[in-house]
Amino acid sequence: MTSEGSLYAIIPAGGAGTRLWPLSRADRPKFLLDLVGSGRSLLQTTFDRLVPLVGAEHVAVVTGRRHRDAVAAQLTSLDPANLVAEPSPRDSMPAIGLMAAILHRRDPDAVVGSFAADQLVADEDGFRATVREAAAVARERYVVTIGIEPTGPATAYGYIEGGAPLEVADAPHAVAVSRFVEKPALETARAYLAEGTFRWNAGMFVSRADVLLGRLEDELPRLRAGLDEIARAWGGPHADAVLERIWPTLTKIAIDHAVAEPVAAVGGMAMVAGEFGWTDIGDFDSVADALGVAPGESGVLGAPDDVALVDATGLVATGGRTVTVIGLRDVVVVDTDDAVLVVPRDRAQDVKKAVDQWRAAGREDLL
Amino acid sequence: MTSEGSLYAIIPAGGAGTRLWPLSRADRPKFLLDLVGSGRSLLQTTFDRLVPLVGAEHVAVVTGRRHRDAVAAQLTSLDPANLVAEPSPRDSMPAIGLMAAILHRRDPDAVVGSFAADQLVADEDGFRATVREAAAVARERYVVTIGIEPTGPATAYGYIEGGAPLEVADAPHAVAVSRFVEKPALETARAYLAEGTFRWNAGMFVSRADVLLGRLEDELPRLRAGLDEIARAWGGPHADAVLERIWPTLTKIAIDHAVAEPVAAVGGMAMVAGEFGWTDIGDFDSVADALGVAPGESGVLGAPDDVALVDATGLVATGGRTVTVIGLRDVVVVDTDDAVLVVPRDRAQDVKKAVDQWRAAGREDLL
Repeated sequence: MTSEGSLYAIIPAGGAGTRLWPLSRADRPKFLLDLVGSGRSLLQTTFDRLVPLVGAEHVAVVTGRRHRDAVAAQLTSLDPANLVAEPSPRDSMPAIGLMAAILHRRDPDAVVGSFAADQLVADEDGFRATVREAAAVARERYVVTIGIEPTGPATAYGYIEGGAPLEVADAPHAVAVSRFVEKPALETARAYLAEGTFRWNAGMFVSRADVLLGRLEDELPRLRAGLDEIARAWGGPHADAVLERIWPTLTKIAIDHAVAEPVAAVGGMAMVAGEFGWTDIGDFDSVADALGVAPGESGVLGAPDDVALVDATGLVATGGRTVTVIGLRDVVVVDTDDAVLVVPRDRAQDVKKAVDQWRAAGREDLL
Repeated sequence: MTSEGSLYAIIPAGGAGTRLWPLSRADRPKFLLDLVGSGRSLLQTTFDRLVPLVGAEHVAVVTGRRHRDAVAAQLTSLDPANLVAEPSPRDSMPAIGLMAAILHRRDPDAVVGSFAADQLVADEDGFRATVREAAAVARERYVVTIGIEPTGPATAYGYIEGGAPLEVADAPHAVAVSRFVEKPALETARAYLAEGTFRWNAGMFVSRADVLLGRLEDELPRLRAGLDEIARAWGGPHADAVLERIWPTLTKIAIDHAVAEPVAAVGGMAMVAGEFGWTDIGDFDSVADALGVAPGESGVLGAPDDVALVDATGLVATGGRTVTVIGLRDVVVVDTDDAVLVVPRDRAQDVKKAVDQWRAAGREDLL
């Protein structure tokens, strides 16, 4: 690891987790939940994974205002100065960009990595080694993304096409990014796998803060200026007022579109590929995967004694009642105080449709 | 209708209704439940159907001791003298036989019909016309069963094979019974339907009380003597003590085996076939049928506003919570305070296995 540019980790803890309803709710979103029975929430697990890499004092979290207290309560070793509460959701670029601007003012050589609060990693040492390699590349003024080695032709993720190798010390796996592609159809995903140069896009970006903000200035100068204005006031007496005033004016945009894709187009984007048992906890199928429940197998989130499976397999999340499933393969049953959900694993993405239906029916109490 | 032999209706209200768990419980068995959203329990519906036929004062109920009070509360116009509470379940022959013995002592020419408390009838006038015809045949000293016109090759019911027509006034449909057969395999059931002489056995028997008891005496004289002893004491000061003493000694046997099959073998059994939209509420598939929910269609027992089906069909019984089903066809979801059940309609019979599993796990609280 080169001496220059200390590493910071930014955790954007947002997103409704609609596809994990009814466990995930507006007031209790998925990152605050222990969805894999580990005893720690997804956010806590993410925090724990980053502390050995950057130190607790270098971890920062951006979350929604309504979740600020819950985040602070869950992350007792998070520095309160490293917790930003967004007045409203404006997607990932303002969230990560604001924290990058704040850290840049504190440490002009800061290298920042962003790591979503809803991903799991089996091989944490492997994960940290990959991030260290990405940081080494970032110190060479690249914006770096971490590409996940695909384990199959997934259609739930975007892909990153790797290009020529980069000659960076301490980063033997670094390549240029040729392009980012959106979630593909199955045939396309298969073609990507056959190609061998495509990786999954996990939304992990590592960059010097000044490089990230500079690239942002090239694309969206008004957004960058707004972030700087908030960052200047941060920690001062007018911080809240400035945030309140500026935030609603910021462009709502994902970091992928704001920085990653345009920078890739001009050759400034690098990728370090990693294989560390990565799982995106996006729906109940991935929760089952994370619990090690293969198709045809069964698992329980909650109280195993409260579950009876008769010629049935799948994932059951108990909520105080017993759950009995008969004659269904690979089904998900979730029981909560006010909602019972039944969905086959391979339809787990459609939970969003059900939530839309409840919303349309005026059942805000369920959301 | 001939003048001789007044008609009485006996409702054996027993059976755990295990295949309708978790709605049906030991303390709240299916006959006490409104399983079709009519506002009346199955028992009340059965009572209501019989009153226009025999008069409320001629309806009698035999139930388990633990359900005595609930039955009395549900059937406010039932004569308390016509309610027998069994100390323990000893199958249908002792239950029906005891009531027949009691009624025979009251009315030596009594004609008794037995009608289970868990059956529905769409065409009640048609039902009553069929029973009247059966009563006319019973007055000729036959033991008469009512055969249900099959609507398909069901394997959940026993069958009755009809023989030669009987010449009985007011009973144009009466035939001799050639034999009773147990629940057949599907191929056999198809053959029965093709034959055209087979009817479903709904367990409805009509007979003069003295004929029934006389046939019972031929087969099981000790059982008949025991029933007579209880009936003699009935209504007197020692009724409970005699019942308590004799009941446990009575042979546990179904009326089919005790009387119907042996009498058919010697040519004393008659059948009147009827077509009156009969449904046996044996499992959740039949509940769906009774609610008019065809395969591919959906229905709700409870609160329709609490159910969201997304590309899904079947039967949902709500219990105060919302139920959301996605991407499953013809599934049954039942929500109660302590148990959630998920089962495809075509596996509804296997609910019994799940109950067995809970029992084996020591969860008496769920039974």
